[in-house]
Amino acid sequence: MLINPYYINRRSVRDYSDRQISDRDIELIIDAASHAPSTGNMQLYSVVVTRDPEILRRLAPAHFNQPAFVKAPVVLTFCADFNRFEHWCRLNDAVPGFNNAQSLLSAIMDVSIFAQQVVTIAEQEGLGTCYLGTTAYNAPEIARVLELPDRVLPVLSVSLGYPSGDNARSPRLPVQAIMHRDTYHDYSDSLINEYYQEIEQQPDAAKFINENGKETLAQVFTDVRYPRENNEVFSVKLIDYLRGRFL
Amino acid sequence: MLINPYYINRRSVRDYSDRQISDRDIELIIDAASHAPSTGNMQLYSVVVTRDPEILRRLAPAHFNQPAFVKAPVVLTFCADFNRFEHWCRLNDAVPGFNNAQSLLSAIMDVSIFAQQVVTIAEQEGLGTCYLGTTAYNAPEIARVLELPDRVLPVLSVSLGYPSGDNARSPRLPVQAIMHRDTYHDYSDSLINEYYQEIEQQPDAAKFINENGKETLAQVFTDVRYPRENNEVFSVKLIDYLRGRFL
Repeated sequence: MLINPYYINRRSVRDYSDRQISDRDIELIIDAASHAPSTGNMQLYSVVVTRDPEILRRLAPAHFNQPAFVKAPVVLTFCADFNRFEHWCRLNDAVPGFNNAQSLLSAIMDVSIFAQQVVTIAEQEGLGTCYLGTTAYNAPEIARVLELPDRVLPVLSVSLGYPSGDNARSPRLPVQAIMHRDTYHDYSDSLINEYYQEIEQQPDAAKFINENGKETLAQVFTDVRYPRENNEVFSVKLIDYLRGRFL
Repeated sequence: MLINPYYINRRSVRDYSDRQISDRDIELIIDAASHAPSTGNMQLYSVVVTRDPEILRRLAPAHFNQPAFVKAPVVLTFCADFNRFEHWCRLNDAVPGFNNAQSLLSAIMDVSIFAQQVVTIAEQEGLGTCYLGTTAYNAPEIARVLELPDRVLPVLSVSLGYPSGDNARSPRLPVQAIMHRDTYHDYSDSLINEYYQEIEQQPDAAKFINENGKETLAQVFTDVRYPRENNEVFSVKLIDYLRGRFL
């Protein structure tokens, strides 16, 4: 088996050239990606393709003005969308019952699968992409700027453009670390140390640790990048927003 | 832009031939897929590759013995995995704060993205796949059979094998129905009717409606395939399982 080397060599792109993507190309990519699997073929998702500079400017704070957002000519906001399907149901004497955790989870998985299909196709056409992990932190603000109706939840965003500059490729865990045969086999301390060795030894690790005054790379994740306090504040905010709308 | 026709022609496969997939090929696919993007490059996921007939037999009821499961030589169970990362944190004097909705959502998106990368690579290598939407319905039972430790949640499953027989390609909504320019543009009744026309006119639609004694295809979705009652029962079950473990 000879796997297309694109898959192993791919990297996220946070720096974009001035070259513009045509509306037609974006449409072709999204059309092709819509053939990705979705629960019951319901396609409980939508994607908002934003390139209007004024709307991007209003969207930027919801993504904390991060460079991958600010430098991108186009941002795709992938939404779990019950609005369209439920509209079709109402026009067809059908009463949907999708205000619950399982339905929301299905839509979140489906929109993630669809988003990744868009990313893969775009990258194979020479475009650069970067997921913006900030979407679920500021769902209410994003919904307001993009004029999302009730029953449409922004879940993840992807910036899109032609690459510029040097985009580093991040190391991954060895396949043995993420794959289990038949059942799950838990890890010994020494296996964990072995599996995370390459991640710990990546060129930027020492810089991240020193800049943040930490002792280990793991502390950079738990204390700086994804601290409990932030995770909890944004979790309360998200659940408040979901309640009554999606749950 | 000339998009690889695989993306538009792909279809799910529920019927598999006797041809076996080698362990090595599965490992190559998973290794390549692990280069898909993940939040902070944390790879908060694992995949359990099950081909032992006895374990598959014990897993089958959790997937309601559906044909796509029973006929498959291999089943991949994709899990949100905090266990491995938190173990690494503990070995490195770092205190993780991932017991909350945002962290769980990140892991669910990441494992969905990873699963779709596995599916795409496998299909491009001539394999057939089918997502099993039943995983989140019976997470506790699946966790028990696969010996998942605390902090590992089964999220989605994929059956895998070489295709056999005729696997129909499902129609999709036109791209205009799922794509919005700059901001969301809500749908008129007539646009909804237009966009769902091909779905409503697919060959199996009349059969589904008649067999189930319904009047419209939408009613097949809301009353038979995804009824509110089921959605709610399995939502309560899921949230009970998450509480204390992941939330």
